[in-house]
Amino acid sequence: MANMKKVKSKKLFMGKLNYGGDLLEEITDICRKNNIHLGRIEALGAVQKARLAFYNQETHEYQFFIIDQSLEITKLVGNISLKDGNPIVHAHITLANKTGKAYGGHLAPGTVIFACEFILESFEGPIFERGFDEETSLSLWTISE
Amino acid sequence: MANMKKVKSKKLFMGKLNYGGDLLEEITDICRKNNIHLGRIEALGAVQKARLAFYNQETHEYQFFIIDQSLEITKLVGNISLKDGNPIVHAHITLANKTGKAYGGHLAPGTVIFACEFILESFEGPIFERGFDEETSLSLWTISE
Amino acid sequence: MANMKKVKSKKLFMGKLNYGGDLLEEITDICRKNNIHLGRIEALGAVQKARLAFYNQETHEYQFFIIDQSLEITKLVGNISLKDGNPIVHAHITLANKTGKAYGGHLAPGTVIFACEFILESFEGPIFERGFDEETSLSLWTISE
Repeated sequence: MANMKKVKSKKLFMGKLNYGGDLLEEITDICRKNNIHLGRIEALGAVQKARLAFYNQETHEYQFFIIDQSLEITKLVGNISLKDGNPIVHAHITLANKTGKAYGGHLAPGTVIFACEFILESFEGPIFERGFDEETSLSLWTISE
Repeated sequence: MANMKKVKSKKLFMGKLNYGGDLLEEITDICRKNNIHLGRIEALGAVQKARLAFYNQETHEYQFFIIDQSLEITKLVGNISLKDGNPIVHAHITLANKTGKAYGGHLAPGTVIFACEFILESFEGPIFERGFDEETSLSLWTISE
Repeated sequence: MANMKKVKSKKLFMGKLNYGGDLLEEITDICRKNNIHLGRIEALGAVQKARLAFYNQETHEYQFFIIDQSLEITKLVGNISLKDGNPIVHAHITLANKTGKAYGGHLAPGTVIFACEFILESFEGPIFERGFDEETSLSLWTISE
């Protein structure tokens, strides 16, 4: 069963992130500065190195790892909602190295931008607030149909 | 040459899928229950195991395979249209394991949800109905410009 | 810091690309023929072979490579803007082979379509024109906040 809510497109932005910044921090910063509490982002570009996470479904802990090489961002996709009243960006990323080999995971702080072009859409709608989920120990939306 | 039709954004939903469900079935179910015949979906999250397919372009048959481990969904992307009068979700998925290694393919039934956050947009527009395509033996949209 | 501009959704198209065409050329052609200067595209499908590029962040040159096998497109994502006054599609692609192994990179001419279903959205907004970027030697948008 799915729990979902109707939202409405509010504003649409297109832009780029600057060289050398932290990918997750920069996106979160855009949301904070523009008062965006709900929405989605997609991006492509390249990173100087990546720090990703894999959620261990047995121990219920994120395992962080670094891919210490320059990589293309073949796709970043993320949603924007609230946690403890502040905008939080939950993004997953797919990357590829010079031979085309692909990597991916949950985007963590520590991923350094080389170049990044994004489209960000803010939504109007109900509050999507993250809270502790018993089953997975993840911080999921506490919505009910 | 491209065959395409103009469509219009109708409704936008944001939500999550429940632990333990079948990923493709759950999305298809949302479409059926909400009378969605046309649209798009994007999602991220994690699965307990994945069942994917690769279309063999020579034999014209889908080859199914299982990745029997927990994986991050780095991206699910799909479109919604009609086949035999019923909503059908055509989705492709990119996944990554604990070392960041990425996998992907055509999403098949048998992929088990750990957690999944999605954005689904329904469209108004002409009927997109799938039918047999001579060239590829795939079930493609029978649209003409 | 991010440089971004507000844009507005203008038209939305859903369609398919024909067997045997060049993936990047076909998308660019749609933009030219429909006078689309700004927007986004997403697609899934399959290719007969892929020609991708990786941007070498040290030498500041694209390194092209071919994956000479049939592959699923697990995701194509791209943006549309202007370069020298003409529409240019900047797309990255994620692919997977018969064992599910994923590949990716910057989409280059030479990628041959097997089947491809896309959603293309045109935007109204300021001019996004690509120009030489000192820091990366890439052709990036010359926008300022």
